[in-house]
Amino acid sequence: MPVNYTTPAPEALFPVAGVRLGMTEAGIRKPGRKDLTLIELAAGSTVAGVFTQNRFCAAPVYVCRAHLATASTNNIRALVINTGIANAGTGEAGRQAAEATCAAVGQLLGVAACQVLPFSTGVIQEPLPTDRLIAGLPAAKDTLADNHWHDAAHAIMTTDTVAKAVSRQFVIGGKRLTVTGISKGAGMIRPNMATMLGFLATDAAIAQPLLDTLVKEAADASFNCITVDGDTSTNDSFIMMATGKGEHTFTSGAEADWNEVKAALTLVARQLAEAIVRDAEGATKFITITVLGGKTRAECRLVAYAIAHSPLVKTAFFASDPNLGRILAAIGYAGITDLDVENVKVWLASQEKSALVSEHGGRASSYREDDGAAIMRAPEITVRVDLGRGAETATVYTCDLSYDYVKINADYRS
Amino acid sequence: MPVNYTTPAPEALFPVAGVRLGMTEAGIRKPGRKDLTLIELAAGSTVAGVFTQNRFCAAPVYVCRAHLATASTNNIRALVINTGIANAGTGEAGRQAAEATCAAVGQLLGVAACQVLPFSTGVIQEPLPTDRLIAGLPAAKDTLADNHWHDAAHAIMTTDTVAKAVSRQFVIGGKRLTVTGISKGAGMIRPNMATMLGFLATDAAIAQPLLDTLVKEAADASFNCITVDGDTSTNDSFIMMATGKGEHTFTSGAEADWNEVKAALTLVARQLAEAIVRDAEGATKFITITVLGGKTRAECRLVAYAIAHSPLVKTAFFASDPNLGRILAAIGYAGITDLDVENVKVWLASQEKSALVSEHGGRASSYREDDGAAIMRAPEITVRVDLGRGAETATVYTCDLSYDYVKINADYRS
Repeated sequence: MPVNYTTPAPEALFPVAGVRLGMTEAGIRKPGRKDLTLIELAAGSTVAGVFTQNRFCAAPVYVCRAHLATASTNNIRALVINTGIANAGTGEAGRQAAEATCAAVGQLLGVAACQVLPFSTGVIQEPLPTDRLIAGLPAAKDTLADNHWHDAAHAIMTTDTVAKAVSRQFVIGGKRLTVTGISKGAGMIRPNMATMLGFLATDAAIAQPLLDTLVKEAADASFNCITVDGDTSTNDSFIMMATGKGEHTFTSGAEADWNEVKAALTLVARQLAEAIVRDAEGATKFITITVLGGKTRAECRLVAYAIAHSPLVKTAFFASDPNLGRILAAIGYAGITDLDVENVKVWLASQEKSALVSEHGGRASSYREDDGAAIMRAPEITVRVDLGRGAETATVYTCDLSYDYVKINADYRS
Repeated sequence: MPVNYTTPAPEALFPVAGVRLGMTEAGIRKPGRKDLTLIELAAGSTVAGVFTQNRFCAAPVYVCRAHLATASTNNIRALVINTGIANAGTGEAGRQAAEATCAAVGQLLGVAACQVLPFSTGVIQEPLPTDRLIAGLPAAKDTLADNHWHDAAHAIMTTDTVAKAVSRQFVIGGKRLTVTGISKGAGMIRPNMATMLGFLATDAAIAQPLLDTLVKEAADASFNCITVDGDTSTNDSFIMMATGKGEHTFTSGAEADWNEVKAALTLVARQLAEAIVRDAEGATKFITITVLGGKTRAECRLVAYAIAHSPLVKTAFFASDPNLGRILAAIGYAGITDLDVENVKVWLASQEKSALVSEHGGRASSYREDDGAAIMRAPEITVRVDLGRGAETATVYTCDLSYDYVKINADYRS
């Protein structure tokens, strides 16, 4: 069960002018599950993406990078997404399969193969059943419609227990801005540049260089701040699409509304990323870890991830056990070799309560175990660490480690 | 149940001349469990140790370092070890408690406080009950005997399911060498310089500078190669003791037998370290990860630890599922940014069978899923990775991740 997240109703997801979505069951994943999604973009849309830094990156990630490299001359017109098979660890044959998929989509929609971006998610190192995928494309095309975000969010799921979608309309500078996005992912989540799969569309017109920069900044403030198990996937991809069919237009970034629009798009990206952690495999708690007082942002992230990845800290959260020494131990081994523990402070907070738990290298004198226990029972918990050595800060979102994480991942292929 | 490890019988543990051990129930841990151990060393013994690099290191680690710093002028004569409370994250009060313990042991045995080394293991950030500990010391002293290694191995356990001891006699250069050691630890295991607690004694005479170097080399080849959950403890300590009551004497390291004796002592250290992984919390498999073909040992260790710490890889081992893409993903995100996956090869092996599973960035053409499945069912599995870019190598020992790891760590304090 996800932590404080439910999929919005279909009517709560605003269509984005210039985007149509279609999906079908192509027999790639389990019977009875839609596993193939097409997203068609109006001519003139701009698209930018960030992808996994995993060296064993998936074949579709190679192909996306190549096609986006020509995006200024050949606008991207379609995305094709399959679940069931990740097409990663599949070598040259995998890249040919991804290219063949793009060629088939291009032929169907009357655009060039290099105007199509392919995405896959599922089991690694098994071959993509290209024949079944291509055979399913016409059925997906037949369902293309602008109000199919809800169905698309379902069709890209794998071990997710809920479909993830966020949709918002803003009025900025008197003009309406629509932003709708979907994401998927529940395990093998420690995005490095982007998450498993995230797609975000807006009706603003955003020039390619602006969008290229924005997608990186938004990823750094959203998908690059979440972790479930520390495993960076081979397929992480986060895509931003701007159709230019709405009321806003940005060509230089000097426009008055640009900063506010950037903040709006980043907010939706962060909510999509948070939804992944809330639905993390086996998760029962949503944990925010904020590290402040660091010399550099990098060292704040080091400490935040050490806490977020510690199996001992994660099992203590699962047990609602204020075993705070485990957090101290993680801070201590995070890699700041000249950390003076005398200056480190640690707080634990729920929405109702906050407690200083540690200072001067030991337990805070004001700390009461009952307070810690009450906070640990909450479904949303914040760990705040002050390193006491600078002004930088970083935040990471994660979850607890439960029996069900082991069960889900021990059973995944069976 | 530990993987292929059982505690040797008491009579299989050779006494080391010059070492006596005593233990008692001081009421620090659970009722009915011995939790306080004294080790007395003959005058003239040399002692060297390595300790955790965790910045939140425990109070006894501070005190050990200070006492060992004067060890060339004040030979160490006793070790005192308690379980139940780690005396870590306890600030200045914790250091005073460790010093008070040493003073009480010194008074009891007629040596100086700075000739005593203190060790604690258990819950972090709770105060050490110094009164109960000191009150228990006379009873521990009354049981001092040279054939109590078996009882001492039991008395230092916490979540361990078996006591860990290794004892060997060698004949090197016609002279007998006796080596006996004990260790403890089952979780929060990713030693960085040393393990939770490991104590190794020999009857050779080894000059202090030689022993100082040897303890580091032996730790690097043993305790520093194991990981259970990636959590570096606050209390890791590995101690080597040389009593000089046997037939060997080493003063310069130029002696003919020194290399062979070093190898013998290192072998016992490695077996003690392996015993910790075999008894890791919830472990059902013992996994050896060897990475070769690296440019540096450091990058080989990076890849080996990425595989060893991946919860997805660990749960696949638990499930006996040859989900090999998870191993590729871990290699890919380990941090070698210029890794050419085209040159990477991965083998999986049990004692009966070996299979090349991956090459050229994809599944090896000769690989059969049945072979992978057969290997994954074995209790001892080796993952061998050739990075194909150099001549360096590294090996790491680890275990799988099971329901029981979560259960043990969710319940630890209750």
